[in-house]
Amino acid sequence: MKKYLDQTLTPQQRAEALVSEMTTEEMASQLRYDAPAIERLGIPAYNWWNEALHGLARSGIATMFPQAIALAAMFDPDLVQQAAEITADETRAKYNAYLAHGDHDIYKGLTLWAPNINIFRDPRWGRGHETYGEDPFLTAENGKAYVKGLQGQGPVLKTAACAKHFAVHSGPESLRHEFNAEATPKDIEETYLPAFEALIKEAHVEGVMGAYNCVNGEPSCASDFLMGKLREWNFDGYFVSDCWAIQDFHQNHKITSTPIESAAMALKAGCDVNCGCTYAYLLTALEEGKITEEDIRAACTHLMRTRIKLGMFDQQTEYDNIPYATVASPEHKSVSLQCAERSMVLLKNNGILPLDETKLKTIAVIGPNADSRIALEGNYCGTADRYTTFLTGIQDRFAGRVIYAEGCHLYKDRSSGLALAGDRYAEALTAAENADLVILCVGLDATIEGEEGDTGNEFSSGDKNDLRLPESQRILVDRILQTAKPTVIVCAAGSSINIEADPDALIHAWYPGSEGGKALAEILFGDVSPSGKLPVTFYETAEKLPDFTDYSMQNRTYRYAKDNILYPFGYGLTYSKTECTDLQYQNKTARITVTNTGKVPCEEVVQLYIKDASQWSPLNPSLCGFRRIALNAGEQKTVEIPIPEKAFTSVNANGERKIFSDTFTLYAGTHQPDPLSETLTGTKCLTLEITP
Amino acid sequence: MKKYLDQTLTPQQRAEALVSEMTTEEMASQLRYDAPAIERLGIPAYNWWNEALHGLARSGIATMFPQAIALAAMFDPDLVQQAAEITADETRAKYNAYLAHGDHDIYKGLTLWAPNINIFRDPRWGRGHETYGEDPFLTAENGKAYVKGLQGQGPVLKTAACAKHFAVHSGPESLRHEFNAEATPKDIEETYLPAFEALIKEAHVEGVMGAYNCVNGEPSCASDFLMGKLREWNFDGYFVSDCWAIQDFHQNHKITSTPIESAAMALKAGCDVNCGCTYAYLLTALEEGKITEEDIRAACTHLMRTRIKLGMFDQQTEYDNIPYATVASPEHKSVSLQCAERSMVLLKNNGILPLDETKLKTIAVIGPNADSRIALEGNYCGTADRYTTFLTGIQDRFAGRVIYAEGCHLYKDRSSGLALAGDRYAEALTAAENADLVILCVGLDATIEGEEGDTGNEFSSGDKNDLRLPESQRILVDRILQTAKPTVIVCAAGSSINIEADPDALIHAWYPGSEGGKALAEILFGDVSPSGKLPVTFYETAEKLPDFTDYSMQNRTYRYAKDNILYPFGYGLTYSKTECTDLQYQNKTARITVTNTGKVPCEEVVQLYIKDASQWSPLNPSLCGFRRIALNAGEQKTVEIPIPEKAFTSVNANGERKIFSDTFTLYAGTHQPDPLSETLTGTKCLTLEITP
Repeated sequence: MKKYLDQTLTPQQRAEALVSEMTTEEMASQLRYDAPAIERLGIPAYNWWNEALHGLARSGIATMFPQAIALAAMFDPDLVQQAAEITADETRAKYNAYLAHGDHDIYKGLTLWAPNINIFRDPRWGRGHETYGEDPFLTAENGKAYVKGLQGQGPVLKTAACAKHFAVHSGPESLRHEFNAEATPKDIEETYLPAFEALIKEAHVEGVMGAYNCVNGEPSCASDFLMGKLREWNFDGYFVSDCWAIQDFHQNHKITSTPIESAAMALKAGCDVNCGCTYAYLLTALEEGKITEEDIRAACTHLMRTRIKLGMFDQQTEYDNIPYATVASPEHKSVSLQCAERSMVLLKNNGILPLDETKLKTIAVIGPNADSRIALEGNYCGTADRYTTFLTGIQDRFAGRVIYAEGCHLYKDRSSGLALAGDRYAEALTAAENADLVILCVGLDATIEGEEGDTGNEFSSGDKNDLRLPESQRILVDRILQTAKPTVIVCAAGSSINIEADPDALIHAWYPGSEGGKALAEILFGDVSPSGKLPVTFYETAEKLPDFTDYSMQNRTYRYAKDNILYPFGYGLTYSKTECTDLQYQNKTARITVTNTGKVPCEEVVQLYIKDASQWSPLNPSLCGFRRIALNAGEQKTVEIPIPEKAFTSVNANGERKIFSDTFTLYAGTHQPDPLSETLTGTKCLTLEITP
Repeated sequence: MKKYLDQTLTPQQRAEALVSEMTTEEMASQLRYDAPAIERLGIPAYNWWNEALHGLARSGIATMFPQAIALAAMFDPDLVQQAAEITADETRAKYNAYLAHGDHDIYKGLTLWAPNINIFRDPRWGRGHETYGEDPFLTAENGKAYVKGLQGQGPVLKTAACAKHFAVHSGPESLRHEFNAEATPKDIEETYLPAFEALIKEAHVEGVMGAYNCVNGEPSCASDFLMGKLREWNFDGYFVSDCWAIQDFHQNHKITSTPIESAAMALKAGCDVNCGCTYAYLLTALEEGKITEEDIRAACTHLMRTRIKLGMFDQQTEYDNIPYATVASPEHKSVSLQCAERSMVLLKNNGILPLDETKLKTIAVIGPNADSRIALEGNYCGTADRYTTFLTGIQDRFAGRVIYAEGCHLYKDRSSGLALAGDRYAEALTAAENADLVILCVGLDATIEGEEGDTGNEFSSGDKNDLRLPESQRILVDRILQTAKPTVIVCAAGSSINIEADPDALIHAWYPGSEGGKALAEILFGDVSPSGKLPVTFYETAEKLPDFTDYSMQNRTYRYAKDNILYPFGYGLTYSKTECTDLQYQNKTARITVTNTGKVPCEEVVQLYIKDASQWSPLNPSLCGFRRIALNAGEQKTVEIPIPEKAFTSVNANGERKIFSDTFTLYAGTHQPDPLSETLTGTKCLTLEITP
């Protein structure tokens, strides 16, 4: 038996044995993302580029979960992990099918380039909806859950997750190929790195992807500082560049002069696989003495080690018989539905919700996102085998008449080039006038909130210019509200939006996945109480934010913001009313009593925040624990939430993380502890001084 | 009271009175398609450009009927008329709403630029699916029904229909702005004009639109020959140019040298309203003496006459209270469903259909048109408030598991630019392998079969290069059939397609409208027996057709084709078997006995063809009557079909239509009388020699 096939050896040993049989040229060939076969060694072709941000992506049909930001809004890592487990099962089922047909193409492998655990630092970032929000702790909890779900319980990895984009990466998209993010040591340690550290140390994520931008002058994919962190954390997976990021070294960052230098710099730093084409110059770099054969060998060994961990060189794995019927199965789609139910955030409700069906004959569903499949998808998604749009969900659920009007284009001022501006308002107003109630479905989609190069919009390469609705929709909202019909606004967007209007109720639905319309209808009609919580601060206006290119955390995110808050972090209403009482602390664990004082069952997220007494603590208390619970009307539960060690640390100006204080204030409630959210909810957070 | 408001006067008198109050400039302004208001006379702005080819189009939500070619496949003018009545009701309901909101924009008026009654002369024509097919009689019957439905029973017109494109117009799209169609007097009288004549004389269509191309050297919108025909037929409506067609006179046809000359030429010839902008030069033409004020006055009077007929200057009309709730009402959509049920054509069935649900656990629905909304729409359509795609329809109807795979892009060789060619075949094959049966949904859509300027495809400006499926789909069909799974192919396309494959069953679904998927599922599972009939010949190959630019009818359409027939005109199977016996003739009426000799109820279309003994009769018998009937299993009915006078005429080389013969042969059956169709159906047409 070939040594690399010997399952009694470690993956590292097997990888070394396999690579030892390769020529230099063969080793170098494997560092391309589209690695060719080495037929004489029985190594099949393999494409490292595969996507699975919220379900298997770009690989045909798969269960489509809500976008990552929506998953974060669940405050429910267990369910995130379940979504990832399903994603991994479907990835394996399709991998088996592709292999059976000899198809080794892109999007058909097991190295999934998810999750995106960048901090959603600025609400204008177009890719923010790919993340788990603005908080390092929430991001880490969800990221770990997603990685665990994707990678499985071993010993063979079900799939290999990848933490991206390492690190300090959050726009602007338009500048990403030449941008240098300048961040303080404190912000890096306090905000930008914790989730990466957690995924590597605690979830053993198999892959890390570097970012496009530079960080403090070093390109992310070849940064001594960042690569040093990976070594410090004992990362033992593979490192991949973002796609065509190494090309940016010479073309845009101007840090090198030639592709040969760029390839050498990345490889030397520790970038194992090149998504792009710059590693085509590796052999030239070797000839020129810029790299050594050992550099190539080390990278190739990392890559083979990952493939070995995935069982690709085992005769069989426990995953080979996952049946194709698992793909987009009814059971899987019901989990997607559950995610959508738990992710939508009720931001306002004057009592109109849940709707009283007995009093409604006709509902007008209006707006450019009402019947939009794209608004369900977000980006980096698969294809669903059925899309329940908001409109369809309401039609299916409501026994009366539903009248639909698109209202306006998502962002253009007219729906037809031959028409006058505002060509669809009259229809929308008529629909409203003929209805007892309006459900107004506005927001964005990934064509105007997304990634550089992906979008055809007129904004900044996928970034938002501001936090408002596009003008076409602002006019629509104004005009519909002027009809004085009872109106519920449903906003589908992956980020903070200020709708600048005062409807009877407001639901932020994110990009809720293929079952989004069903979840919305269930919430509207009270089959399900909303329970999503904001994983990002909703600001009043972009004008009061720091410059988009400013990577200082000052006055950004709930931990550092002084003002400009529209809806606070962690906020979200239910159809009931819950009260936290009796906060206690013992043995690194908080104990909170929660009572449903309302009239209907609900799910609630109990949140724990902490702040130390030192000068190094962030301005506002930081999330350090949370727990989703279900409560019947009148029910009381006592919730125990362990507080991680790290919650007692702070970071000084040098970026050193330590315990700087003996005393801490704990806050328990159902949202960030701040005056506005307490006014909004009518409930104060509990506070407790503790000395651990 | 102003004289033009006096409803006791004729529309002509009222129009003359109204126009007499206008200045020359005001009259000229009304000849634009986007006619401005004349406020001093209380004349509101009016946009003449409105669309309603198969339901109100481009005006937001409306009931979407199957595309025109599909409506023709019903062989059921009564139902066509009902669809048009619904369309007119919805147009009025929305017109009322637009007016209430002061919206006089494009697509919001009452002058509907439908139907398209051009003869579908060549199967490569991209716009062929807008027509009622290749037969003048079938086109006229459907066109008259559509016009009657749109215009209503009067006295006030519910809406104004428009017969287009007058005349001899059927591609190529890529040449339409400079093309000169050369047609013989015989072909013009025998094929190209009869439907126009019928709509004007028998259905009193209110509008006629000229075509882009020249006909025998004269531009259609200013042709002495064609305008002479309108006068001969006592046309008393309004004439509109196709959009920017007058500009073609100087820019492309080079028949005039300047826009001034073009405007003058069109107006002089009798073109009342200019869709385009060339009539901006009318006042200059007047100054230069190229036209007279009387020319302008005549056109303006025609236009005001139409607006008066529509009740636009009446205090109220019977249509003012059509409620908005009528738009896309459940009742209206059920008629759309009925149209889809009757329009789909079963071309092949080895007995697999209807499907036996008890034997099926898993169905694979595969193909680029399976979950496509565009494939339901065709072109010139509205927006449906719900789209039941083929996939969704099957999911809703089938209790077992449905697996979906897109299979391939509609026409590109890969679904992702980064992937290798054929990137979705492995998934499709896997889906097939995991199913008991495959429903393979292939075909075209309006992005590759449509109008010049509308499409982004790589083919000839919307025209087809051949009659095959795009290569991506040919490979898909081959590979799926190689799995040897039972396979039903569903082809959505607006024209003749040769799928070049031998599945267990083949359904040609056209572009079946918003309810298309429901209709398909009903047919697949036997809730409804298919009953659509081909309104066009399905040819074997485009290579055996005359040149696309050749407007001679020789070897084109079922009346003149000698060979190259894949499926004949009028052909379409049911789930039962019907037999025509006992053809009799008396008093211009044929009497046929029809028996359902099969085991299930069905609808059938009894068809009557005629041929005279003279040298002037078309090569093959011509359709002269038909009747759709419903028959229970074993049921026998006697059908009476009147034969119109015109059926006994033929056209000589000079274009003179006369009765040239004493004896005629009548053919009765369920398809065109030809040997192939008799082999396909196993039933011979009945023949009867008659001497009327």
